[in-house]
Amino acid sequence: MHLFDQIQTPTLLINEKQTRDNIKWMVEKAARNSIRLRPHFKTHQSAEIAGWFREQGIQQCTVSSISMAGYFARHGWQDITIAFPVNPREMTTLKQLRETISTLGLLVECSEIVERLEAELESPAEIWIKVDCGNHRTGILWNDGDGLRNVAQAVRSCKKLHLRGLLSHFGDSYHAVGRSAVTSLYQESLSRLQQARNTLLGAGFEAIELSIGDTPSCSLVDALGTVDEMRPGNFVFYDTMQLAIGSCIGEQISVALACPIVALHPERNEVVIYGGAIHLSKDNHSYAGQAAVFGLPALPTKTGWGAPLAGGYVRSLSQEHGVVRLAPEHLSSLKVGDLLMILPAHSCLTLQAMRTLKTLDGRIIETMLSESDA
Amino acid sequence: MHLFDQIQTPTLLINEKQTRDNIKWMVEKAARNSIRLRPHFKTHQSAEIAGWFREQGIQQCTVSSISMAGYFARHGWQDITIAFPVNPREMTTLKQLRETISTLGLLVECSEIVERLEAELESPAEIWIKVDCGNHRTGILWNDGDGLRNVAQAVRSCKKLHLRGLLSHFGDSYHAVGRSAVTSLYQESLSRLQQARNTLLGAGFEAIELSIGDTPSCSLVDALGTVDEMRPGNFVFYDTMQLAIGSCIGEQISVALACPIVALHPERNEVVIYGGAIHLSKDNHSYAGQAAVFGLPALPTKTGWGAPLAGGYVRSLSQEHGVVRLAPEHLSSLKVGDLLMILPAHSCLTLQAMRTLKTLDGRIIETMLSESDA
Repeated sequence: MHLFDQIQTPTLLINEKQTRDNIKWMVEKAARNSIRLRPHFKTHQSAEIAGWFREQGIQQCTVSSISMAGYFARHGWQDITIAFPVNPREMTTLKQLRETISTLGLLVECSEIVERLEAELESPAEIWIKVDCGNHRTGILWNDGDGLRNVAQAVRSCKKLHLRGLLSHFGDSYHAVGRSAVTSLYQESLSRLQQARNTLLGAGFEAIELSIGDTPSCSLVDALGTVDEMRPGNFVFYDTMQLAIGSCIGEQISVALACPIVALHPERNEVVIYGGAIHLSKDNHSYAGQAAVFGLPALPTKTGWGAPLAGGYVRSLSQEHGVVRLAPEHLSSLKVGDLLMILPAHSCLTLQAMRTLKTLDGRIIETMLSESDA
Repeated sequence: MHLFDQIQTPTLLINEKQTRDNIKWMVEKAARNSIRLRPHFKTHQSAEIAGWFREQGIQQCTVSSISMAGYFARHGWQDITIAFPVNPREMTTLKQLRETISTLGLLVECSEIVERLEAELESPAEIWIKVDCGNHRTGILWNDGDGLRNVAQAVRSCKKLHLRGLLSHFGDSYHAVGRSAVTSLYQESLSRLQQARNTLLGAGFEAIELSIGDTPSCSLVDALGTVDEMRPGNFVFYDTMQLAIGSCIGEQISVALACPIVALHPERNEVVIYGGAIHLSKDNHSYAGQAAVFGLPALPTKTGWGAPLAGGYVRSLSQEHGVVRLAPEHLSSLKVGDLLMILPAHSCLTLQAMRTLKTLDGRIIETMLSESDA
């Protein structure tokens, strides 16, 4: 029986070959730019997929929580940066984690946390000062010289903390479209980050590394310039949000949610799928004139899925339902019980919701989310 | 040690008393209107909370998947309607489920599925024809007389299927604001559903029940009229989307995500919390002049949390971060490591993401999502 015939409920499929190609592409780009690739593993949360990076020579990773760091530490990763502000309520867990790996990178943006880390940690940690280059999520503003110097000074006065550099996430790239717009945003953000470094160099700090990270910039900017580290994550799977930005082409999207069709509504050019917010997440983006697209439909093929169907998109999601707009010529060949493959709007959140992946030859890929089920 | 002092990571809290009050209020309203309450359990997915309904005399429930039906069946629920179109790929599971309970209600909207059910089921099922009263998710259009008669006739010609009635979800109420708007939308939708019933009565069908279900209508419409069954779900917890519609007041929202503050940004009137899309979901709604609000902040109190902070809202969510706008007078008293309580935009999806709840005296409430972890 073909794998697709066995699918009863929404199932997250992964094209392993394409995923490995995506990894190889980014590894080679980082090498070409002489930048250390520290991929963000929050997208896949899987020790097996992490192993595909290791096969390409990657020894360091980024994670977004202490529990995620613990998972990858248990799977042999010794050099981990937690790209999330230190949460003082987890200091005991953090201290324990530190003792299990050789290199732990941490993000700080205030002196109080620096002092707290110095007081609580038993072994040294690498400290990255988080810099806000205009995205306004977290970090010290790039032009807040006093703020930068104060935190850097606080780190320098600590025995266990080593100031490694400045880390930023140029998240505004998610609102840009196309190589030119992403590149010009990148250059502006990077010049701000370099200004922040100059502030510290001018205050006598040395060997300040720069770490940047968003998938649009890392995918689209040809010359990444004088940065030391890049931390993209989403590129491992890509998704339709990245397609809309232009970070990838449709063929590079390496995951799709296989969804049974449960109702046909040709009178409004729509089908209803079993596949909703609890499978895909409610994340969405504008695309091809639509204000909110929750994914793009494709048809199953013998070995995977085809290109996104022209004119088709996921129009709305409720808890378990998805409503998919399709061109009449695509809709007319479908029937209730057929599968529709949905390329997700945001693959990180779809993986989080689905917890496991299934390869195109039917093998389950576990993640830290499914490990907790065991 | 106080419960809140033990919280290290985002934790979904439930005010049990308020939840029980919400249940009691809806049970009494249904009784006052002489309508059978068949609450939707997708909001809580918890056998324990289901038990609170049973204590109020409720013996029947609605679910959104076969696996959810199976969970509540294992916990003693014998009369379950699956308010989702029958998925032909799950026919074997559905057949097995049918044998474990006394009454199974199913939704259909096409004759092919009716024939398939008749061929596959071993025991009788109650059939509800799904009617689209203008919401355009699933169902036969209320004014599609041929469509309604054809499916009803297909059911009548089956031995194992009993045509119970017409079921609709007036989902457009989620786009209305206030009692008057919700009531007028309800009356229009109900008159359409009654028109569909008249079509079947005119064709010789008898005893056609009507089942309706959205939380805004069930909360706000005083006189629900001649319907037989109501299936609201969200009201058990409510959330800020319902607050924005006017279905509830702030005090009726009975769940909150306790989130550690990890960064303060008074220069932009914001704090950053550990609490993101993987905890709250990415669902959002417009509120108080903001186009997209992902939840509302409140302060912890000794026994729970206070009213939503005036002028405050969750402005954006990434995978683990939340950015919360706060009035300066509220922000000035906060520090990194404090907890902020976030009333979720959509409690159903927050529960789905968090999988368990914690009562204000520290007891864990399990759900079908955490059961699979055991």
